[in-house]
Amino acid sequence: MEKNKPIIVRYGEIGVKSPKVRKRFEKKLISNIKSVVDGKIVLNQGRIFLFPEDQEKAIESLKKICGVVSFSPTVETVTDHDAIKETVEAYMKKLIEDGVFSPEKSFAVKCRRVGTHEFSSREMAGFCGSVVVELTGAPVNLSNPDFRLNVEVREGRTYIFHEKIQGIGGLPLGTQGRMIALVSGGIDSPVASFLMMKRGCDLTILNFDNCPYTSGSNEKIIKIYKKLKEYAAGSDLRLYQVNYGGFLQKCEEEAPSRMTCVLCKSGMYQIAEKLAQREKAFAIIDGSSVGQVASQTLPNILATRHSTSMPILSPLIGLDKLEISEMAKKIGTFDISILPDGGCSAAPKHPETNAVLEKVLETQEEISMDAELEAVFSTLKRLDLELD
Amino acid sequence: MEKNKPIIVRYGEIGVKSPKVRKRFEKKLISNIKSVVDGKIVLNQGRIFLFPEDQEKAIESLKKICGVVSFSPTVETVTDHDAIKETVEAYMKKLIEDGVFSPEKSFAVKCRRVGTHEFSSREMAGFCGSVVVELTGAPVNLSNPDFRLNVEVREGRTYIFHEKIQGIGGLPLGTQGRMIALVSGGIDSPVASFLMMKRGCDLTILNFDNCPYTSGSNEKIIKIYKKLKEYAAGSDLRLYQVNYGGFLQKCEEEAPSRMTCVLCKSGMYQIAEKLAQREKAFAIIDGSSVGQVASQTLPNILATRHSTSMPILSPLIGLDKLEISEMAKKIGTFDISILPDGGCSAAPKHPETNAVLEKVLETQEEISMDAELEAVFSTLKRLDLELD
Repeated sequence: MEKNKPIIVRYGEIGVKSPKVRKRFEKKLISNIKSVVDGKIVLNQGRIFLFPEDQEKAIESLKKICGVVSFSPTVETVTDHDAIKETVEAYMKKLIEDGVFSPEKSFAVKCRRVGTHEFSSREMAGFCGSVVVELTGAPVNLSNPDFRLNVEVREGRTYIFHEKIQGIGGLPLGTQGRMIALVSGGIDSPVASFLMMKRGCDLTILNFDNCPYTSGSNEKIIKIYKKLKEYAAGSDLRLYQVNYGGFLQKCEEEAPSRMTCVLCKSGMYQIAEKLAQREKAFAIIDGSSVGQVASQTLPNILATRHSTSMPILSPLIGLDKLEISEMAKKIGTFDISILPDGGCSAAPKHPETNAVLEKVLETQEEISMDAELEAVFSTLKRLDLELD
Repeated sequence: MEKNKPIIVRYGEIGVKSPKVRKRFEKKLISNIKSVVDGKIVLNQGRIFLFPEDQEKAIESLKKICGVVSFSPTVETVTDHDAIKETVEAYMKKLIEDGVFSPEKSFAVKCRRVGTHEFSSREMAGFCGSVVVELTGAPVNLSNPDFRLNVEVREGRTYIFHEKIQGIGGLPLGTQGRMIALVSGGIDSPVASFLMMKRGCDLTILNFDNCPYTSGSNEKIIKIYKKLKEYAAGSDLRLYQVNYGGFLQKCEEEAPSRMTCVLCKSGMYQIAEKLAQREKAFAIIDGSSVGQVASQTLPNILATRHSTSMPILSPLIGLDKLEISEMAKKIGTFDISILPDGGCSAAPKHPETNAVLEKVLETQEEISMDAELEAVFSTLKRLDLELD
């Protein structure tokens, strides 16, 4: 019985691509699903039919697979009136038992059909409707029913379902190339990373260990990595870290103190660009949002990005803190991000908010930033390989 | 009576800024409101009290002012039990007349108080509650009421209200500096522009007239400009256009045909950078979204942005088409964007999706792109000054 409970999986934007691109995307989506769900997968006219070993487990996995727009757990039977009658009866009895349906609710049956049959879709919907009326006595309401039963006939197999569970949407992970994601322990950068994964990008996460200006504990970043990993089915999500405290100390000692945050950010982008070359990545992603904190002003963004030639993508740049926090709650990183970590003590009391590009470049020169960053980059280590 | 109907306006993120920044933001928000609403404005402990000439008109204006998180139309009276009783009675009678409240609904009264009074907030809430019970007989339910009446006592004045209308949030327009926004007639770029206005950025819109590869009509871009202008209270929203058709012709004739879209996009950024210098803008904004169309691949983003040193911000980069379309509907640009315009006929059948940076730079050299773009920039004209 368990093996006869397939799931119909719907995907969205892939549909609008050229046949060649579509085929590539579908193949990747199927292989991503296979990497976390045991079972058979059949592609049939723009829908994925997944026959999982364990339907419950598969449902939880599908909720976190990039590119899945929605899906419906079904019960399968052969395309035969007696078999369908029996299956619909058992299906509705179960829903009544579970409190999902009750006879005072109005209902409608919707039928979709692929293949040649002796009956029309409307006739099959009518047939199933009469089965439900006979069983429950519930009133039919075609225009605005309380409950909708779906019957999907595909050649010799028929699928019964009523739920449409939302997926996270987007594109299959691994169809868009790799990016370097700057991720801290804050609320924003994990959300920015998630959004780009959702748009199909493989990620290499880069974290900066600012010890002794921060606690030096990797607990938060590892928790965030593990949470993001839940959405990375089929992708090699990597986590790197460099020691950045020495560079911050240099900034503190030799540069104007108000410039620390600007130099720190500029340095992060430059390190990310070095890593991008090694990782064959096409872009850097961060959690910047205009005007959210004093250092995220347009002049500062201009000055901090100038020394990097790779595109820096900031998917949160136009969002409010409230909107970002809502997203963080939805994906499950919020509770990790708000764990107290003392913040960064290298940040000056009055950080520069109106950085002048020439001044920043001059200072970078004065503190031999290039050489300093080479030293930082030599501390690069990969953290995820040590995890269970 | 009309003059005694103030509106309480709430703003969000400004609250977390330093006192100096907060003061500057509040001042700008107030002057932005004043630019579209006739009436007196008083700032009182983190709330704006607006006394409009016309409450209905002011409500419509406030819905479109960047930085307004929510607002409540109120009725004002003096802080005196008899006056408050009379006002609450009249207020509730009106709500019953309008079908907003009815006696079978449960209700609660919430009181906030600033200043020294002979009564506590709880006592005032109890007093107003008894007025409502006496008038309507409706049941009190403090934990989960169907209807909530608010009484805000500020020294000698008291404000009665029940509605909390959502604003668009974000930051006051004009607090973050100016950006150049690339805007076409499509769905995405107006949404990208709106998001950055919402984050407080003044915008200079730059449109490319691709005639003869497009219709050459300015109807759509002007409609989009006018729609965005509705959200630009207090800001000088500018609209520029250049003739781009000649450059596209050059690309078509002298460069590999699959490279047209890449050269077109790269050229747009370069023109935008020229305009940014003239306009004292700090960044360029566009409607890019990874993987949405064939040309928006990571390799193409890398190659098209390389010739521009100014930051390019793409607030939609992590969003799905569906999410972007929903936003476009909400702000009112969707119906304009989907007006048929025939699209751009310069786009090749098989556009490059995996642009190689060196090849792009070489081709730019071969077609004397710098000189071509100088010529394009010389056609710059401002369109918004001619509008009514």
